[in-house]
Amino acid sequence: MASISEIPDIVIGRLPIYLRALTQLIQQGQEITSSHELGQRLGISSAQIRKDLSHFGEFGKQGTGYQISHLQAQLKQILQVNREWPLVVVGAGDLGRAIAHYGGFVERGFRVVGLFDNDPAKIGTGAPDLKVKDIAEITDFVRERNIKIAMIAVPAEHAQAVCDTLVKAGVRAILNYAPITLTVPEGVHVQYIDPVTHLQRMTYYLD
Amino acid sequence: MASISEIPDIVIGRLPIYLRALTQLIQQGQEITSSHELGQRLGISSAQIRKDLSHFGEFGKQGTGYQISHLQAQLKQILQVNREWPLVVVGAGDLGRAIAHYGGFVERGFRVVGLFDNDPAKIGTGAPDLKVKDIAEITDFVRERNIKIAMIAVPAEHAQAVCDTLVKAGVRAILNYAPITLTVPEGVHVQYIDPVTHLQRMTYYLD
Repeated sequence: MASISEIPDIVIGRLPIYLRALTQLIQQGQEITSSHELGQRLGISSAQIRKDLSHFGEFGKQGTGYQISHLQAQLKQILQVNREWPLVVVGAGDLGRAIAHYGGFVERGFRVVGLFDNDPAKIGTGAPDLKVKDIAEITDFVRERNIKIAMIAVPAEHAQAVCDTLVKAGVRAILNYAPITLTVPEGVHVQYIDPVTHLQRMTYYLD
Repeated sequence: MASISEIPDIVIGRLPIYLRALTQLIQQGQEITSSHELGQRLGISSAQIRKDLSHFGEFGKQGTGYQISHLQAQLKQILQVNREWPLVVVGAGDLGRAIAHYGGFVERGFRVVGLFDNDPAKIGTGAPDLKVKDIAEITDFVRERNIKIAMIAVPAEHAQAVCDTLVKAGVRAILNYAPITLTVPEGVHVQYIDPVTHLQRMTYYLD
């Protein structure tokens, strides 16, 4: 088994995709799969899948394939989602509220425990179990609960300031929906969701 | 200038990030930038940026940097977003409605022209200029307007069927928010937005 530093981040990035596919297979009642079948479903070569998984040990036997529940459990452990991570969402506009109430987090390792905004008209509104809180309270909230993960869904011009506050409070992983690149200190991880960059990547290919 | 087939998709995927950064610089009143400055902002090496751009021609002079507005215009042309692409959103739940009403599309080359759902309780509701339409009408809608792009924001179990309908109607680029991998014929492009895969990629690194 390779040490963490030896495993390329692009490999880590594919593990959640494998995990998602395995979970679907289980939901469909399947117990065994192969790198070939997974590859076909995901549009990834079976050799790539075997190579990615080989970084972490031996999961399948030649010719008999993978026991899905075992591989699923292993991937959850590797990705550290065999537990529940609390996270906060900053920005209670349409998008922030939609994200905060998305039902698909809990079964995959995450729970939104706080939704924050700076707009007095929004603070105190929303679902009883997830009322919008004042952004002024976020530092204490994050520190007291030892929260390591946040999603940012504020306008671009406020995103860096929100990011700085979160990092100072102890957040170490940020999923940023604002369409700007954030500057963070070493040891803080940022991922981006910007639908337009995905769309523009595809229009390149259109006639 | 290389032909399209020679340019790796991963390079194409970075161009929208460069374009976004250039647009920000212009908004800040800047006229000239360098691969070094761009790289610092984006966390990408300046050598990588120069190499990516060199696929498409000569945009900067050694020592004088890039004229931002020129490079921006060139990237828009390469990505074909120096025009406006109409697109449809399928799924009028919280997320679909948030996406459909996102204000950031138009200035970056896209306009949501239709929002569809199969729920009778939703059809006919919503903003006057973007009322939810019956999914049964989507084939005619897409064909009549020659729409090539769609965003899918329906539950996972319906996503493949919606995808098939869209492709049959002529859609060639799909941004899928449902947490499953779609099967599409050759020549149809799919990009995925699943916040959980991004979060899981980061929890791997957390202590």
